[in-house]
Amino acid sequence: MATQNLTTGHMRSDGSETTLGAIPHPLGQLTVTEVNLAREAILKARGTTVAVHFRSIFLEEPPKKELSQFLDLEHSEKVSLQTPRPARRAKVQYDVVRGDKNHEYTESCVDIASGIEVKIRVVDKVHHASLTTHEFKAFTEACFASPLYKKAIAEFDLPEGFVVTIDPVSICATISGIEAESSGLLFVQDGSQEQPWPYGGDGEIVPRYMQGLCFARDARSGNGDSNHYPYPLPLIPVMNTYSHEIVRVDKLATGGKDDGLLYGTHKKNVLDHCSPGEYIPELLSQALRSDIRPLNVVQPEGPSFQVNGNLIEWQKWRFRVGFNPREGATLHDVHYDGRSVLYRLSLSEMTVPYGDPRPPFHRKQAFDFGDAGAGRAANNLSLGCDCLGVIKYFDTVLTEPDGTASLAKNVVCLHEQDNGIGWKHTNYRTQRAVVTRLRELVVQFIITLANYEYIFAFKLDQAGGITFETRATGIVSVVNIDPGKTSPWGNVVSSGALAQNHQHIFCLRIDPAVDGQNNTIVSEESLPMPISKELNPYGNGYEVRQTPIKNSQFFDASPMTNLTVKMTNPSKLNPVSGKPVSYKFIPTASQLMLAHPDSVMAKRAQFAQHHVWVTKYKDGELWAGGEFTNQSQKEIDGVADAIARNENVENEDVVVWNTFGLTHNPRVEDWPVMPVEIHQIHLRPADFFTSNPAIDVPGSKDTASTLAPGSEVCCESGTVQKEASSHLQGAGPDLDPKSNL
Amino acid sequence: MATQNLTTGHMRSDGSETTLGAIPHPLGQLTVTEVNLAREAILKARGTTVAVHFRSIFLEEPPKKELSQFLDLEHSEKVSLQTPRPARRAKVQYDVVRGDKNHEYTESCVDIASGIEVKIRVVDKVHHASLTTHEFKAFTEACFASPLYKKAIAEFDLPEGFVVTIDPVSICATISGIEAESSGLLFVQDGSQEQPWPYGGDGEIVPRYMQGLCFARDARSGNGDSNHYPYPLPLIPVMNTYSHEIVRVDKLATGGKDDGLLYGTHKKNVLDHCSPGEYIPELLSQALRSDIRPLNVVQPEGPSFQVNGNLIEWQKWRFRVGFNPREGATLHDVHYDGRSVLYRLSLSEMTVPYGDPRPPFHRKQAFDFGDAGAGRAANNLSLGCDCLGVIKYFDTVLTEPDGTASLAKNVVCLHEQDNGIGWKHTNYRTQRAVVTRLRELVVQFIITLANYEYIFAFKLDQAGGITFETRATGIVSVVNIDPGKTSPWGNVVSSGALAQNHQHIFCLRIDPAVDGQNNTIVSEESLPMPISKELNPYGNGYEVRQTPIKNSQFFDASPMTNLTVKMTNPSKLNPVSGKPVSYKFIPTASQLMLAHPDSVMAKRAQFAQHHVWVTKYKDGELWAGGEFTNQSQKEIDGVADAIARNENVENEDVVVWNTFGLTHNPRVEDWPVMPVEIHQIHLRPADFFTSNPAIDVPGSKDTASTLAPGSEVCCESGTVQKEASSHLQGAGPDLDPKSNL
Repeated sequence: MATQNLTTGHMRSDGSETTLGAIPHPLGQLTVTEVNLAREAILKARGTTVAVHFRSIFLEEPPKKELSQFLDLEHSEKVSLQTPRPARRAKVQYDVVRGDKNHEYTESCVDIASGIEVKIRVVDKVHHASLTTHEFKAFTEACFASPLYKKAIAEFDLPEGFVVTIDPVSICATISGIEAESSGLLFVQDGSQEQPWPYGGDGEIVPRYMQGLCFARDARSGNGDSNHYPYPLPLIPVMNTYSHEIVRVDKLATGGKDDGLLYGTHKKNVLDHCSPGEYIPELLSQALRSDIRPLNVVQPEGPSFQVNGNLIEWQKWRFRVGFNPREGATLHDVHYDGRSVLYRLSLSEMTVPYGDPRPPFHRKQAFDFGDAGAGRAANNLSLGCDCLGVIKYFDTVLTEPDGTASLAKNVVCLHEQDNGIGWKHTNYRTQRAVVTRLRELVVQFIITLANYEYIFAFKLDQAGGITFETRATGIVSVVNIDPGKTSPWGNVVSSGALAQNHQHIFCLRIDPAVDGQNNTIVSEESLPMPISKELNPYGNGYEVRQTPIKNSQFFDASPMTNLTVKMTNPSKLNPVSGKPVSYKFIPTASQLMLAHPDSVMAKRAQFAQHHVWVTKYKDGELWAGGEFTNQSQKEIDGVADAIARNENVENEDVVVWNTFGLTHNPRVEDWPVMPVEIHQIHLRPADFFTSNPAIDVPGSKDTASTLAPGSEVCCESGTVQKEASSHLQGAGPDLDPKSNL
Repeated sequence: MATQNLTTGHMRSDGSETTLGAIPHPLGQLTVTEVNLAREAILKARGTTVAVHFRSIFLEEPPKKELSQFLDLEHSEKVSLQTPRPARRAKVQYDVVRGDKNHEYTESCVDIASGIEVKIRVVDKVHHASLTTHEFKAFTEACFASPLYKKAIAEFDLPEGFVVTIDPVSICATISGIEAESSGLLFVQDGSQEQPWPYGGDGEIVPRYMQGLCFARDARSGNGDSNHYPYPLPLIPVMNTYSHEIVRVDKLATGGKDDGLLYGTHKKNVLDHCSPGEYIPELLSQALRSDIRPLNVVQPEGPSFQVNGNLIEWQKWRFRVGFNPREGATLHDVHYDGRSVLYRLSLSEMTVPYGDPRPPFHRKQAFDFGDAGAGRAANNLSLGCDCLGVIKYFDTVLTEPDGTASLAKNVVCLHEQDNGIGWKHTNYRTQRAVVTRLRELVVQFIITLANYEYIFAFKLDQAGGITFETRATGIVSVVNIDPGKTSPWGNVVSSGALAQNHQHIFCLRIDPAVDGQNNTIVSEESLPMPISKELNPYGNGYEVRQTPIKNSQFFDASPMTNLTVKMTNPSKLNPVSGKPVSYKFIPTASQLMLAHPDSVMAKRAQFAQHHVWVTKYKDGELWAGGEFTNQSQKEIDGVADAIARNENVENEDVVVWNTFGLTHNPRVEDWPVMPVEIHQIHLRPADFFTSNPAIDVPGSKDTASTLAPGSEVCCESGTVQKEASSHLQGAGPDLDPKSNL
């Protein structure tokens, strides 16, 4: 089906549109012009008596009701320049700062066409805004100016030529209960009681904080990329993000196995037993390998995909790619061969709780999407390094503190890749083989969150499959450990550097629209049967049992019953099998949250405690851990609250949230940068099609493949080399004498 | 470490050696010359009064004690032409046929150097030899000649121009208990009692059988590759493999949901409601896709691997590849950077039990390795189709019934591939990114077993990892179903063709030699901790608990405790972490055998009932399901018997067997040929190395990558584009004024 190109949403690098008179698609990212317009609208609306500190300005996706109608018209090719379309809206997140220096975190919606603010919400102070890169920037300077910090750092002698380097990160802080605390001081060396937080009792609003993981960098080489992580300093300063005051500096335990929770030797020369751990090639302690010969991916006729603005078409797939500062890249309106599969697909949240019980490590639990924003942390990708082949890049527009737009280039890459054999069959009688390759289309973005990297990829294939892949890499978080010790809370990956045990728990948000919006989620299991004369006389039978999910709820993976989640359309039956069309996946039985259910860590991350959540669609309900995760005390308006609405989800507009993760007890091989740890979720059609959707993929040969010395070619697909295969010819002639081979 | 090339074991295509005076490596496959020599030895030893029907002749791998000593010398570069080496031995499997036509399945060992038989074993008649392709060939002719078969087939009218096509397969047959049976007859249509087997009571030796799955092929086009599977005939003939007599023809049930176990309408025109399902391009009912542009893998400087006979060296890996008619490709003496990792790695067995309880489908359970042999079923691989890039092929030598050798070309392919990013880190302060690709070396073979294909690949990577990958493809097994019906025992994937539910359960045999032969297997789990003031005051802590396996035993995957199997060397500690060096894997929590434990299916496949088996090494103990699986009644001398020896396995020469699988309830998309279903096992170093073993991989760029129209290059790795990234620059200057960025 040809697509009308009236709505390109295609940005030039200066943010202007490419087609004269073109209208941005409702799902197109805000252009620089639109961002600036929204900024103006807010400044005007707030007036001159206050300061406005902007955080983000990005597209507010239209309500599903409106957008679906428009998308349906698009698919029916009934859209013209005159077609009414959902209004372009900008979501603006900012602080209003009044004379008293109080920050009011505010969220507004601006109608682009009119340039008018149409909605405003001042966020309750119990919630904290996510942290921006600009706020992170302020941390180190704040330490530099802080008497408390200076006193703390003076307790340590850095090696000659080393400078302090601080990674600011979000903090998991509590307000009451076991953490009731008062003013901040350093730990004293004899392990006396932990010093409390600088605020009052229950109910008081907690200020917005940030913590800093401190290291020292060897600056003697003059190379700013010398790795600081091998030199962890045993202190954590905590800053009030508004006042920039360092309110507290925790001294860290550095003991080992059998040492108490707060124990550490805390010598002045606390880094002397540490070792370098360089990873940049010019500083590497060993020579680079010189025997890896190039392997190039070449597409002499160009790529097979077509891109028009945010619209991508490839091998019967048709979808749009979005991008926002929180979720990074998102897929929308995903169709295969003209049929609807998904309304929206995105990674909804992730959390990285640390399992070291020694205070203050109980505060080490980032929600990288909610606390900071994956989109803000996205790498600018590099040709031939991050992606191979013919690459199409997509940009995004981020926001400066003054609200002006800044272009972030090449944050999403699009390319094809070969993933081995797609399907094959050889008729052993004739030796005729038919084999095709599995070509995939990859939409990828990479985020850096201080030490860690995550590579996220949506992979669509020619057999109607969608794979969501996560690769964790980057640098594991380490803390200082006394010389010669080991610890049950992690692994010593470098002398004096303990890589703490932790988990990475993610949640993929799947908004299915399998042949239409109203779907039923079915849990299907394969179960053993008793032996019985009437039903299972020889005991080999097994039953496949389906349980439709009727009310919003969670459930867990069950690999030993092969539990499969099927997102079905009960109103559309497959004409061959008679069963409802569906897309399915098997939820990985990842280990879930290990933190105690009564802990703040666990309470903040309900989503991380079950594998599958089925909710009824609600506009704006996008984040598994809730809208405000930064410094949250518990999960609010995340998936747990969503299912508590106890709505009917049978044959409804539903959303499926899949939690998966990785328990990471670091190994020495993860140092200094870890080799990728890979996880995949496979969404696959199940009775959606009437045959293998890739059966029409030609079995064409890669004519560029060549033989290594010493090999010979045999058996071109389709021909039989009699000599070599005579021993494999099969069952003899068919019984009809006329058809003898 | 340079390797001496005295022992190439390199075969020319005529089986001769390539280097003058070179001696085959002890692990080198038998050459054609050696096979013929072994044949002669047996014929001579057995004499002229009997006939000898050969099955297989292949290398008998030397005992570990001898071989290890030799390999150690090799690694120390102390091997010369004079070095004593393990004797080359041929294992010969054959039937001795005497005047009375009785077949004695016999196994002998021939010493190649002397040409003398040094061992002979007449196998107990309770065991049955595996089936050869030559035996399969005889099946269709036997049907043609059988009055019983002809009577049965006459009950059906085939469509005009269709011919019967039979897939012979192994059979799961019982001798007693619930299956006590007598002479063979067809089912009568009124569902009267199942007809029994043609032999006497308990204890009598069961003849060796084979069964045939019958289909009809549309021969009208004259194309011998027209797909017969869409036309399943509801009968199964059973043949005595020695007498070639069809002893029984079972009539198959064709009913659906709510029909009885033996029900079927059994009309004469039983195929009229079936539909074609072609997959070969010239007969395809739809046009092939024309919009997929080529994607080529080009290695302009050639491959990075070096091959000398069966020795492969690549990126610090050094190992030998073997091949035998049962296991297919095997890896031996796997070292990384001069250190021992594995002694041997192979797929040990697989079984495919069907879950349709209607007789006679309880007899549908192949053990593809033990019943027939993966090596015998290996495809001859095709350049650019089965493998991309620069390919090295390996051949094998198979055996004709007269014992002569026949060369099977290109049964194993070796090539490199790119698997995305290997590791990456970006220093957000400087925007300096270091990224490397993950290059893998692939050793792959593909087997066809009648309808099914399996693609097996050993993938070694630059980060010291070994991945074993299985892809299932080919054609699902279907049986006839009455028009308009559905069934709980499978899915209708084509009109009149029910694809039965089944499982594929595999077992990987890992013989570790982690820095030496004596290893301890450790089961490691991550476990929650209670909240306690002394140990875990905030509830975020978790414990990592290790359980060394002391006695041979089985245990199961436990994903919810992140159970990880570590193959350790307790005598070798990592100098950084202080922990024993190891290689680890997380056993997949695949669904295990669904068949009832009392069923013959389950009793034959104990290996399929638990995920991990740890045994003490024993020469020749290679097959998880036991040596003789064809028509077995229970698993004998498989992993279950091995662990029953209850041996000490702590700090011993141990073997780890990992069972994994796929419960396959077919979907319509699996028809007519299924898109690959992929499973991977990841063996990864854990504290084996003192840092990321791939840290020295250069971050070289694929200069062949290009931009799709509309993109711009940004941010070459290592450079900072100030404009684009200003918003991402991080935490400000370091605190030492001398090192300001």
